[in-house]
Amino acid sequence: MKRIYWLILPAITFLIITFNSVTSPAQKTSIDPLPSWNQGTVKTTIIDFVDRTTTKGSPNYILPEKRIATFDNDGTLWVEKPIIQGMFILESLKKLAKNDPTIQEKQPFKALLERDIAYIKEAGEEAIMELFTVIYHNQTEEEFKTNISNFFVNSFHPTLKVPYNQLTYQPMLELMTYLREKGFQTWICSGGGIDFMRVISEELYDIPPQQIIGSSLTKEFLVKDGKGVLVRKSKLNSFNDKAMKPVNIDLHIGITPVLAVGNVRNGGDIAMLTYSQNNPISLQLLINHDDNKREFAYSESDNASLNMAKERNWQVVSMREDWQTIFAFKNKPQE
Amino acid sequence: MKRIYWLILPAITFLIITFNSVTSPAQKTSIDPLPSWNQGTVKTTIIDFVDRTTTKGSPNYILPEKRIATFDNDGTLWVEKPIIQGMFILESLKKLAKNDPTIQEKQPFKALLERDIAYIKEAGEEAIMELFTVIYHNQTEEEFKTNISNFFVNSFHPTLKVPYNQLTYQPMLELMTYLREKGFQTWICSGGGIDFMRVISEELYDIPPQQIIGSSLTKEFLVKDGKGVLVRKSKLNSFNDKAMKPVNIDLHIGITPVLAVGNVRNGGDIAMLTYSQNNPISLQLLINHDDNKREFAYSESDNASLNMAKERNWQVVSMREDWQTIFAFKNKPQE
Repeated sequence: MKRIYWLILPAITFLIITFNSVTSPAQKTSIDPLPSWNQGTVKTTIIDFVDRTTTKGSPNYILPEKRIATFDNDGTLWVEKPIIQGMFILESLKKLAKNDPTIQEKQPFKALLERDIAYIKEAGEEAIMELFTVIYHNQTEEEFKTNISNFFVNSFHPTLKVPYNQLTYQPMLELMTYLREKGFQTWICSGGGIDFMRVISEELYDIPPQQIIGSSLTKEFLVKDGKGVLVRKSKLNSFNDKAMKPVNIDLHIGITPVLAVGNVRNGGDIAMLTYSQNNPISLQLLINHDDNKREFAYSESDNASLNMAKERNWQVVSMREDWQTIFAFKNKPQE
Repeated sequence: MKRIYWLILPAITFLIITFNSVTSPAQKTSIDPLPSWNQGTVKTTIIDFVDRTTTKGSPNYILPEKRIATFDNDGTLWVEKPIIQGMFILESLKKLAKNDPTIQEKQPFKALLERDIAYIKEAGEEAIMELFTVIYHNQTEEEFKTNISNFFVNSFHPTLKVPYNQLTYQPMLELMTYLREKGFQTWICSGGGIDFMRVISEELYDIPPQQIIGSSLTKEFLVKDGKGVLVRKSKLNSFNDKAMKPVNIDLHIGITPVLAVGNVRNGGDIAMLTYSQNNPISLQLLINHDDNKREFAYSESDNASLNMAKERNWQVVSMREDWQTIFAFKNKPQE
């Protein structure tokens, strides 16, 4: 008879585990999925949206395959003052100029080298993509990836004094994790370079390369010694900002997002947020950089994004008021 | 004591099920994952490739996130004699011409209407995409999708006499299911229109819109009455054939496929198969249409695809010899 207890033991353990996980839903939902978000309308709206779109039987239920969420990157998922890709280009150019002094006399390199960070601060994403195009065409995939990976670890933000891989926003990381747990697909749709972001997106955001949409260079497929290689050309294929965001979302995904997140800076995300509103059940978040103490406070000259948010009922996320923590690195134990 | 048996009963059932599934791996693997493929080198090579790339500890193990498989569509997953999208365009054009007789005098419509199926049979995919562009620009998304869905159900292949949604190859459906079960992502990369394929890809192939790469029209995002709409322009954005296939795979996926499948017709898949071979552990399949009895026998004038297959060690799939069944509809009970 003793032997049968040993046989039954794992079965009983299984029953206990099953019983517990079935009977404690209340305990489960009481865990705050967004601990870095302060209590308030925005947080409540997000959780309410996720609850009613993912609960079977809810009139607002969205099928898992339609749960597409798109996020801008610069200023939405990580710092954009200055634009990180711009800082990478500045560094790369300085290295190039060391080996080839004639570069210092060529435009737009000359202006960039002379004005340094000030240039990056004032240049738009399009000018930065153009610089990117000129510097990175013809580089091998391995050089390209290694240079970018090294930059994120070894280079430091000029005022925040931490490496660039530490500049993601903790509340956004939590939001993306929460959404994925609820069956949403999280995509990036940014004016930044698609190849630049892909080097770091899995490490920083847990987002695989095939879910990155960004500005792209024209490429050509050539066969050299029987091996097929993709070569970057010094020509933009697509600058993924404003009205091009919905166009490229359609090209890459083919499904209109039900959740879109962007930020106030140059109206770059208005089209994407408007597009997602074609879905009657949808949520739009617009991040407002209004925290001069912990991050940077800036606005748009024409206030277009905030005006549109009011008109179209988008949720404005105040970094100062809605975010308890801003940077992911503040949450990490100091080494 | 009797009550405890009732409590234990489900636990014992669980133990029995667990025990059985743990102890019968031999039984499991003896189920043929590709029943419509005849025994032979090709089938053995496929199963061997999948086994050694998905078995942990194998020297050829490929991480799940790198298990990307890309498939051409026309002539690889479904019949391309005549090209299905071409037949859809022909039908659409006939409807248009009924309402607007001036269309009958315009080129290239005139040639198409006069020569009918013969035109589609001889035209390349690029000419068909151009026609598509001219006919479908400015159509609303709903009209567009409804027309395509209806076509697949209501229109019949001229010689096979079944609706177009019945013209997929059974061995390829099995291969894609098998790969997905082994953790591969199955993508389509075709010269056909991306929007055309997306309407039907989930139903026919279980492939979601975001895993379709194809030829695309230029689109524009416009805001009309506060609503954002994507409008098709009568201009090709990308014709996804030959050297453009690797370029668009890179744009959409950002990972080089480890398995690529195409077919003999015009050398359209040589670049994609070559590109996948950049991965030292990879498999290339080239489908040869050599079965005049059950499908259609055709070859390339310059024999480029078959020559390349020999040179680069790709597996040539003989439809006549390697496929026990060709069409999925032959497997279905007749209604």
